[in-house]
Amino acid sequence: SVSTVDALVAAREAAGHPERATVYMGDQGHVALRRAATTIGVRPECVRMIPSDGLFRMDMDALERAVADDRAAGFHPIIVCASAGAVGTGAIDPLEEMADFCEAEGIWLHADAAYGGFAAVTDEGKRLLAGIERADSIGLDPHKWFFQPYEAGCLLVKDASTLQDAFAVRPDILQDTIWGANHPNFGDRGMQVSRSFRALKVWMSVQVFGMAAFRSAVAKGIDLAARAEAHVRASPALELLSPTSLGIVCFRVNPEGAEVGEEALEKVNRTVLARVFWEEPALVSSTLLRGRFALRMCILNHTTEWDDVRETLEAVERFGREALAAEAAS
Amino acid sequence: SVSTVDALVAAREAAGHPERATVYMGDQGHVALRRAATTIGVRPECVRMIPSDGLFRMDMDALERAVADDRAAGFHPIIVCASAGAVGTGAIDPLEEMADFCEAEGIWLHADAAYGGFAAVTDEGKRLLAGIERADSIGLDPHKWFFQPYEAGCLLVKDASTLQDAFAVRPDILQDTIWGANHPNFGDRGMQVSRSFRALKVWMSVQVFGMAAFRSAVAKGIDLAARAEAHVRASPALELLSPTSLGIVCFRVNPEGAEVGEEALEKVNRTVLARVFWEEPALVSSTLLRGRFALRMCILNHTTEWDDVRETLEAVERFGREALAAEAAS
Repeated sequence: SVSTVDALVAAREAAGHPERATVYMGDQGHVALRRAATTIGVRPECVRMIPSDGLFRMDMDALERAVADDRAAGFHPIIVCASAGAVGTGAIDPLEEMADFCEAEGIWLHADAAYGGFAAVTDEGKRLLAGIERADSIGLDPHKWFFQPYEAGCLLVKDASTLQDAFAVRPDILQDTIWGANHPNFGDRGMQVSRSFRALKVWMSVQVFGMAAFRSAVAKGIDLAARAEAHVRASPALELLSPTSLGIVCFRVNPEGAEVGEEALEKVNRTVLARVFWEEPALVSSTLLRGRFALRMCILNHTTEWDDVRETLEAVERFGREALAAEAAS
Repeated sequence: SVSTVDALVAAREAAGHPERATVYMGDQGHVALRRAATTIGVRPECVRMIPSDGLFRMDMDALERAVADDRAAGFHPIIVCASAGAVGTGAIDPLEEMADFCEAEGIWLHADAAYGGFAAVTDEGKRLLAGIERADSIGLDPHKWFFQPYEAGCLLVKDASTLQDAFAVRPDILQDTIWGANHPNFGDRGMQVSRSFRALKVWMSVQVFGMAAFRSAVAKGIDLAARAEAHVRASPALELLSPTSLGIVCFRVNPEGAEVGEEALEKVNRTVLARVFWEEPALVSSTLLRGRFALRMCILNHTTEWDDVRETLEAVERFGREALAAEAAS
């Protein structure tokens, strides 16, 4: 979240810190994006939440309309935030189209790839994330899909001088840091002056395990999620709520042919979620997708095997049957 | 630095995020304060640097005039930052007077006590810092005078709801965090969502060593700095540049009766600083005080003894004599 604030400050300064600045993000974007925008002083009413398409990706037409309307009304669009992928579903916004649009409009493109960016170490991920390399800034959390302990936020920018221009300060008290200063001073490239050496653990784990291990661990997560989706599609008890993207599958208990109302379904699935939480060795989370309560399986632990995933899905089916029976009896 | 941004965002929101907001800080304040103000969207030309008095403390008359002038010109003063103590000299701004003023004016008072705040564990420090408890927010860095490893930034606020109002978000994806939620969620009280458990090391070290050990370590730093000042005052080779405050003494080589110009003095003292850095087991830093190059001794390591301080001061005197001789010969 801190790196997002750093990115947005750099973007704001690169745009000349105009009055009536507006920022755009998908309605599936991480709430940290919205909070980062208000942290840097963009007014809440100037943060535009752009609707998503049927696949939970940013709707380009809606984005283009919003920017055009704002310009006509005297606002200054300064930043577009892309999700790659979205925190709820893993959906990846149309990065190439967004990059084309932002280039043409002269707007900073920030890609929030906190979770999904590390898919780029695999061939399939590279294909899915095509266009991300054109963003002005990319946020990554190695403590997510790069298997690092908390915390290790990371920010990549196209042009390091944009951070330097926004943050560099040279106080009298640090004049001595000129000794040994033939390397970048990260205190000049973000809001933190006193910083722990977070990069060390990332570098060391790559040295120790090698990139091949990271590649195969990420690829395994993508593969297990695809198998989980196939299981959900084949299961008469389960309904897929969003297509698998990266390592995330969203689904719910909703047996074919069962006439269960939305309210009862939410109750049943909440019960299932609680039982998985308390009774199973797996952690399934939940989210809301267009108002529907979804079970969210995010597979990224490198020790997870197909049997773990299968057993969890079978537990969901079993808990679902029991909850539906209890619901019918009540 | 991150906690300062959190504090200023809370202050800005508490003030209703007015247009043309202005922020006030002493010219001895840490540069992180200035950067935090611009990070949250206050324009650089709306950050007022208030001059300091002869003791490097904020000049209250100048502060009052600046606020009155700004109000008359249609600006909205939202935050006054106090230093306790200032990073260069350890000087403590007039906290009681600033608290009176801010209360009367309805302006948020932020105390930057990153380094000096921990003096409050001693009786003398409590006396020196009187009034700090009236601030709306206090920044503390336990990795400074509370002997913690990097990093451990800390923010105290008078009213936790001011942080909550500024930062609380409840995204769909974190709806499950309601389980086990009968404790504060720090993700709602600052910009970080994923946070490492920094407080653990602080708590553990207090449990292991006891507060008495912390008290005596801080008191020793204050005492050694006072003895260092006495040594500087008594030394014919050294000149005190600011009175000792907390653990900091600023001084320079400038022998009594020697007719050495300011430019030569700076050159001599830079040479002395470099020799201490490369040849001595001590780290003396430097700063600029009203344009004069100052050696800055900040005594806070709990293993430092008087012999270490004395030997360092004697080395400064010796290096100073040699540098002056070389300067005279050139």
